[in-house]
Amino acid sequence: MHSLLLNADMGESFGAWTMGMDAEVMPHVDLANVACGFHASDPDVMRETVRLAGRHGVMVGAHPAYPDLMGFGRRSMACSPAEVENLVLYQIGALAGMCHAEGQRLGYVKPHGALYNDMMRDHAILAAVMRAVTAFDARLPLMVMATRDNGAELALAGEHGVTLWREAFADRAYDAQGRLVSRREPGAVHHERDIIVDQARRIARGEPLVAADGSDLVLEADTLCVHGDNAESIAAIAAIREALVAEGRARKRGAKEGGQP
Amino acid sequence: MHSLLLNADMGESFGAWTMGMDAEVMPHVDLANVACGFHASDPDVMRETVRLAGRHGVMVGAHPAYPDLMGFGRRSMACSPAEVENLVLYQIGALAGMCHAEGQRLGYVKPHGALYNDMMRDHAILAAVMRAVTAFDARLPLMVMATRDNGAELALAGEHGVTLWREAFADRAYDAQGRLVSRREPGAVHHERDIIVDQARRIARGEPLVAADGSDLVLEADTLCVHGDNAESIAAIAAIREALVAEGRARKRGAKEGGQP
Amino acid sequence: MHSLLLNADMGESFGAWTMGMDAEVMPHVDLANVACGFHASDPDVMRETVRLAGRHGVMVGAHPAYPDLMGFGRRSMACSPAEVENLVLYQIGALAGMCHAEGQRLGYVKPHGALYNDMMRDHAILAAVMRAVTAFDARLPLMVMATRDNGAELALAGEHGVTLWREAFADRAYDAQGRLVSRREPGAVHHERDIIVDQARRIARGEPLVAADGSDLVLEADTLCVHGDNAESIAAIAAIREALVAEGRARKRGAKEGGQP
Amino acid sequence: MHSLLLNADMGESFGAWTMGMDAEVMPHVDLANVACGFHASDPDVMRETVRLAGRHGVMVGAHPAYPDLMGFGRRSMACSPAEVENLVLYQIGALAGMCHAEGQRLGYVKPHGALYNDMMRDHAILAAVMRAVTAFDARLPLMVMATRDNGAELALAGEHGVTLWREAFADRAYDAQGRLVSRREPGAVHHERDIIVDQARRIARGEPLVAADGSDLVLEADTLCVHGDNAESIAAIAAIREALVAEGRARKRGAKEGGQP
Repeated sequence: MHSLLLNADMGESFGAWTMGMDAEVMPHVDLANVACGFHASDPDVMRETVRLAGRHGVMVGAHPAYPDLMGFGRRSMACSPAEVENLVLYQIGALAGMCHAEGQRLGYVKPHGALYNDMMRDHAILAAVMRAVTAFDARLPLMVMATRDNGAELALAGEHGVTLWREAFADRAYDAQGRLVSRREPGAVHHERDIIVDQARRIARGEPLVAADGSDLVLEADTLCVHGDNAESIAAIAAIREALVAEGRARKRGAKEGGQP
Repeated sequence: MHSLLLNADMGESFGAWTMGMDAEVMPHVDLANVACGFHASDPDVMRETVRLAGRHGVMVGAHPAYPDLMGFGRRSMACSPAEVENLVLYQIGALAGMCHAEGQRLGYVKPHGALYNDMMRDHAILAAVMRAVTAFDARLPLMVMATRDNGAELALAGEHGVTLWREAFADRAYDAQGRLVSRREPGAVHHERDIIVDQARRIARGEPLVAADGSDLVLEADTLCVHGDNAESIAAIAAIREALVAEGRARKRGAKEGGQP
Repeated sequence: MHSLLLNADMGESFGAWTMGMDAEVMPHVDLANVACGFHASDPDVMRETVRLAGRHGVMVGAHPAYPDLMGFGRRSMACSPAEVENLVLYQIGALAGMCHAEGQRLGYVKPHGALYNDMMRDHAILAAVMRAVTAFDARLPLMVMATRDNGAELALAGEHGVTLWREAFADRAYDAQGRLVSRREPGAVHHERDIIVDQARRIARGEPLVAADGSDLVLEADTLCVHGDNAESIAAIAAIREALVAEGRARKRGAKEGGQP
Repeated sequence: MHSLLLNADMGESFGAWTMGMDAEVMPHVDLANVACGFHASDPDVMRETVRLAGRHGVMVGAHPAYPDLMGFGRRSMACSPAEVENLVLYQIGALAGMCHAEGQRLGYVKPHGALYNDMMRDHAILAAVMRAVTAFDARLPLMVMATRDNGAELALAGEHGVTLWREAFADRAYDAQGRLVSRREPGAVHHERDIIVDQARRIARGEPLVAADGSDLVLEADTLCVHGDNAESIAAIAAIREALVAEGRARKRGAKEGGQP
């Protein structure tokens, strides 16, 4: 088993509309972030996605969002922390019921889109998300973005008794603070597979990336977010996975030979 | 404790709109049917309602419905059984999460409005609801309408391993089959408190009601549905409860004296 | 110009979800049935679709539906006639505003999915749709399904002062009454292009089709409904159009030579 | 006729939920801001409200909002200007159709809640609203908030060829810039009828108010926003109206006697 888990957004179809290639992506990932009906998905899609994850031994996580189907949860909404807490709790419960019906356990929580960005920017929102998680099940890890310094998030998680899983991106450029470079900037998204796989490998090893300003950036990450919208991106996921598995084997072998952890 | 539990629809407010007098009704009932966001309620209202029920020791039940906020779940929708199963499961899970967050357990399931009517009319829909209940937790009782003969519903429940709670109405006239007389008919709704309390007492004792065609109608019921929209109807609930408690005491006394169960 | 206009459902994307190949279909049709936000589409999609229609000289029609995004308007809902009237009126107005903004005029109304089926089955619903049309603009034609005998629909339209456009299908089998054979039956959908084009040509000429029971079926139709979801179906549309244009030329020539209208 | 028109939010019921006392307020106002289905209202409520306005000779205005029923349009949403333009256009069209069906003309546009606040704060949003208005009908006035200096809004309106109606509030305290004091501050809302009527009269006369910091504040206003949620607030509206009518008569008399406009 490799140490850096791959997570992907899943269950983003809605009613008559299909999105994503869940059946193709599922075999290559460890964690499925399943939409919960507020920005995407519906009860049928959720159940089908949980079932699909189960067939592949993939852990299901709740992917709650602002209530904005039309905007796919990508538009920030000025919800109060109490509103955020309750809408996250609602969505976690709905998906947990689906998991239970399929003989699975909900594994973690990763907020979606604008809610994810808002909680990284505004710790009153992050605290609200944490309250929702602990109200439901304090053992559920919460996924947040790995940045240069996650000290504030880790401290808040400590206060709430929440475990954080930090996620990094293999196909995105970072600024010096470890924030993603905006997609509007040139070079924000890596397209060459070699570069993507190399970035994944560096993150897995704890080696520095080169930030947009040329400085070194070390990200401590537990998981890597991947996207599979077409054949090429699915091939990239497979390549990342292969590299990480090789990495894991090498580490294990090194640990054995060297007697180190 | 009386034997016929009182249930009422609760948590029917939505966003900025208030409906019902939950705070006034809650002290008088045993079971709160809490809307789950598809026909009424939202995450904030659900949580607040569960909390209110908790303060009064009232058991919370899920009140799932068709996805029709504009029509308040009162319009039949041609959903397939599979769709019904999943939308009921989704709503149960969402409310169960709220209960869990408030240190309570979801107690039962009662479909709302058109879904309730449809499941009584179409046993493919009823079976779908039962599959949702057992997928979530086979110990959750399902509330259905008490009619002259619930044999078919009981048989289906037996097949699914679901417990039924049959509910009757104290303020509605019944036809010979034990179906509610349509509100469009004269005399469909009882307005005098004495008549309502008498009907409640007869149902509790297993004594016959007089159906619309003059025939005797015995309903076997576990619970009585009450509504509290104004001061008068809340007073009626209190009067029903008082009558049922007195009834329960008399029965207990009789049982002691006569040595019968 | 050919006499049998081609209509296609358009603007069925919603938010982040894409449906249909509007840009590819638009050049081949005369009439675009544009979703109005209740079963599909959103304000951005509607405006873009109206603009696209304008670039191709295609007439825009309103495609109103039951309020059921999750079910894509395909599930019958027990709306009252008054509710149907108002929800159709709302959707017509919304799309007409988009047309006006783009320098176009809304051209007609065609109800979608379950609402279309319900109005053909229940003339109280059809009358409600007609009231909505006349309340908005009595000059707007209403599209209905061409059957063996549209006498009842034509009479109702006469009472309301509404013009009917009857639509037929080139790729579907009909029963003896001129209703579509259910998709669940074998042979309900024609897949061979020759058969489809032949059926289109027969309808254009007023020649009989062979119904499912072998009887002759003559449909009087003003328009033909086509679907373009993939390259093959778009090629079929193009072939139908070519056949109809040839047909129109032949008729015109015949009329000239024979001195007939 | 008095010079300062009274406007009130109307048609804020939704499905089974009632909000406001439209029937009681309508006789006392000149302008009805009718919700268009995105934050409140539905097709039935809209039509009924337009009809009610018609019976009282009240002009109907569109009251478009962000698509957020659960939040009643009070939560800012990060919609792009293009999205705002189209969602405002959609809502204007839908309500204009209702007006047309009832033999009325839509009279103006007043954005609701968070959209109103956002357009006052962000002129990219205001420009988007103006584009929607002119795309529909450039003769429709747009209501904005009267502040100490509406120069920027007037300039933008001039560029777009839009007429502005500036609205003021009789029951709210203002800061020195002519912005409303936040409801969270003490003294933000006036409750005494005399104070409210006096503020209305001062605004009508062009006399200065006293801002929160004690400075003089002159607001140039075309209309006054009033709210009628209960008997007391409706009596306040009636009192404001009476004062304004008396004011108008006095001005007219003065104009006649003095020969001034």
